[in-house]
Amino acid sequence: MSDTEVVRLVTAVSGGAPGGGACSSDAAVERFARAALTTAVEPGDLEAGRLVAALGPEGVLRAVVEGHDAERVLRAARHAEVVPLRGAPRAAFEDASPERAAEDARAVRRIAECLERWRPRLSLDESCRAVERASRLGVQLLTPDSDAWPEGFASLEGGEPLALWIRGDPNRLARLEHSVALVGARASTDYGEHVAMEAAAGLVGRGFAVVSGGAYGIDAAAHRATLASGGLTVAFLAGGVDRLYPAGNSDLLRRIAGEGVLAAELPPGNAPTRWRFLMRNRLIAAAASATVVVEAGRRSGSLNTAGHAAQLGRPLGAVPGSILSPASAGCHRLIREYAAICVTSAEEMAELADPLGTGPTGSPAAAAVRPVEGEPRGGDAEGVVLSVLSSARRADADEIAARAALPFTTVAAILGRLDLAGRARESGGGWTLSERRHA
Amino acid sequence: MSDTEVVRLVTAVSGGAPGGGACSSDAAVERFARAALTTAVEPGDLEAGRLVAALGPEGVLRAVVEGHDAERVLRAARHAEVVPLRGAPRAAFEDASPERAAEDARAVRRIAECLERWRPRLSLDESCRAVERASRLGVQLLTPDSDAWPEGFASLEGGEPLALWIRGDPNRLARLEHSVALVGARASTDYGEHVAMEAAAGLVGRGFAVVSGGAYGIDAAAHRATLASGGLTVAFLAGGVDRLYPAGNSDLLRRIAGEGVLAAELPPGNAPTRWRFLMRNRLIAAAASATVVVEAGRRSGSLNTAGHAAQLGRPLGAVPGSILSPASAGCHRLIREYAAICVTSAEEMAELADPLGTGPTGSPAAAAVRPVEGEPRGGDAEGVVLSVLSSARRADADEIAARAALPFTTVAAILGRLDLAGRARESGGGWTLSERRHA
Repeated sequence: MSDTEVVRLVTAVSGGAPGGGACSSDAAVERFARAALTTAVEPGDLEAGRLVAALGPEGVLRAVVEGHDAERVLRAARHAEVVPLRGAPRAAFEDASPERAAEDARAVRRIAECLERWRPRLSLDESCRAVERASRLGVQLLTPDSDAWPEGFASLEGGEPLALWIRGDPNRLARLEHSVALVGARASTDYGEHVAMEAAAGLVGRGFAVVSGGAYGIDAAAHRATLASGGLTVAFLAGGVDRLYPAGNSDLLRRIAGEGVLAAELPPGNAPTRWRFLMRNRLIAAAASATVVVEAGRRSGSLNTAGHAAQLGRPLGAVPGSILSPASAGCHRLIREYAAICVTSAEEMAELADPLGTGPTGSPAAAAVRPVEGEPRGGDAEGVVLSVLSSARRADADEIAARAALPFTTVAAILGRLDLAGRARESGGGWTLSERRHA
Repeated sequence: MSDTEVVRLVTAVSGGAPGGGACSSDAAVERFARAALTTAVEPGDLEAGRLVAALGPEGVLRAVVEGHDAERVLRAARHAEVVPLRGAPRAAFEDASPERAAEDARAVRRIAECLERWRPRLSLDESCRAVERASRLGVQLLTPDSDAWPEGFASLEGGEPLALWIRGDPNRLARLEHSVALVGARASTDYGEHVAMEAAAGLVGRGFAVVSGGAYGIDAAAHRATLASGGLTVAFLAGGVDRLYPAGNSDLLRRIAGEGVLAAELPPGNAPTRWRFLMRNRLIAAAASATVVVEAGRRSGSLNTAGHAAQLGRPLGAVPGSILSPASAGCHRLIREYAAICVTSAEEMAELADPLGTGPTGSPAAAAVRPVEGEPRGGDAEGVVLSVLSSARRADADEIAARAALPFTTVAAILGRLDLAGRARESGGGWTLSERRHA
């Protein structure tokens, strides 16, 4: 298949990149290569991420379909890594030491394994059919060059998805910049579902989008209440976006496709697997500003999403419940052992996702709601922080947190707010009370 | 009244100091003076604590009943502070600077206010009657020189009680060394009471005494379940130990007097006041190894006990509950904002009070129970800590906590356990895996 044919195909089926302008032919080839690779590469494959970073999606696609051997792929990757940095191969590139030889042998083995995995699954014909099928189903391809590509994915580094297959308007994904993932157990209780619905409604009222995984239980309650409140909800699925799994949620998932976004790494037609659920969870954690586990037993899969959020350094909250309910034991464990913040209201979840209270871009609703519904709690903690700040002596945030006997994250957020309000300022790594307000 | 008369009276009514040997006449006078001062000094009076530290209880009693003026008391206190340190007054003692004069004037004013407060309430006759009444009621006086005096009171420093009035065997107080305070709202729910009872029973099974305040709701549930489990329970009361307040708990309080201990700072006959409740809370927090708030609304008085525990640096736990129950909102606030540990079982409360798991002195029950009921959780965390420890490179506990992604307190406790078990050791401020187990 020639590049021209590829371009014709890609531009025909994809109708240009969402969120971008017209599709140049280079960009079209890259888009097709990404689409093709998603048919063969399992989500979260770090080796694929490394090779795509070095050779580009088209280079990796060519290596697979044209049957390059692993040594050739490694040479190309090494060259690609070195040349853009230096303009010419570094001395290390010519290194012939035994250590280098052993390292190369390991790299060749890894690449050979990848090529072996991908080759049986990947053909240009099958890739074209996948793109055409997606187009027929109204499924669009979103690639990292799009403005709509979730910003949070950057924190996944080598584990960033190659592309997303989307049902719904991909441009809606830009609103994930101000979003909360509400996740939890499929085996939820009335309590958990009630909390999920109240949380979703409260977050929508504050201008947040709600991310979840489309599963029974807490996920479904969060999606449903978001839609009912007129908010934006995004479901990341572990299989293809045409596979409305679980079947009992198919009506809900269709509504999300219409009013929100259904997104998946795998192209239409793929079934979810246990691995794909675990890797799907990383997308939820990375896409949302914060993750809140609403209700989860000790072995709930949602704890995996919490683990991804913690690993990515994202704010992580958990809703407490009765200690007599095994359905809340996972949440308590997150609070007790994994430093999850105990959140008991939509207000607290919003604070977790947006500690400075800057609100969503272009959404005056949040700003309007916040001061009215602001809890006395925030004010109290702010008062304590103000009381331990000195106008004479600098103190760093750690010290202030210790003196105020407040969690560091709370203090950091308050200091930021006080800074914006001109009541405190930072210089030389320390915080002081701002004199202006004391004049 | 001569000293001889005082001694006769004190030895007659108190029958010697509990927990100690025979009462020398000096000690008897000090005991009487402390008893007398409790009739006039409100609990937690720091000025009284300072004066007693400087002049001794007898000196303060004399100053009040013999009508010394504030200047004389200050001079005596200054002299007492300086002489034992240096053998002779320091130069500062002769200081005639204006700063010193201003400071003295302030001190004189403070002392004069104290004397004014105490004088109308304090007479030797009334003090003798109080001691005699206590004796008739079977109430004993416990002073800080007794072996049974709660060790934890030392952390109160100037706020330590002058004495305790006790119903029940004062020697039982020695077991407070291994105890948990279970406190909470009077307006408790079935949930809170159930949790308090399960917690008390579980703590008794692990060899802990249970401390509380004798109030309705959580306090009563904790005391009752401790008695039903055959454990030791201690109630600190805000009024006299003869005033069984609240009246609805009088049967329970009588049982505590018989099988446990009722203790109060104020002599028999005194009614509780709002101030006395708040000051009583500091005794609960100081006496117990850890404080756990079982169920508390946003304004529950038990949050004051939690505040004392935090201020004294004692471990503080809170039991989560439904976020829809206002009765748990105070607990969630403690977890969220005041770094209280989220505790969901008696096992976790025991770990809070005794992180090294050394168990109560002379109680083989705890050691026998622990390995059988040990939760996998503890083991998991220990495994994680072991996995990040190196036998080659030292790491401090902070670094280990960061690498293990576990709370510092958990890691510190585990390192202690591993040290005791010979599996890890500390040297030069860093921890390593112990080689012995790897040989």
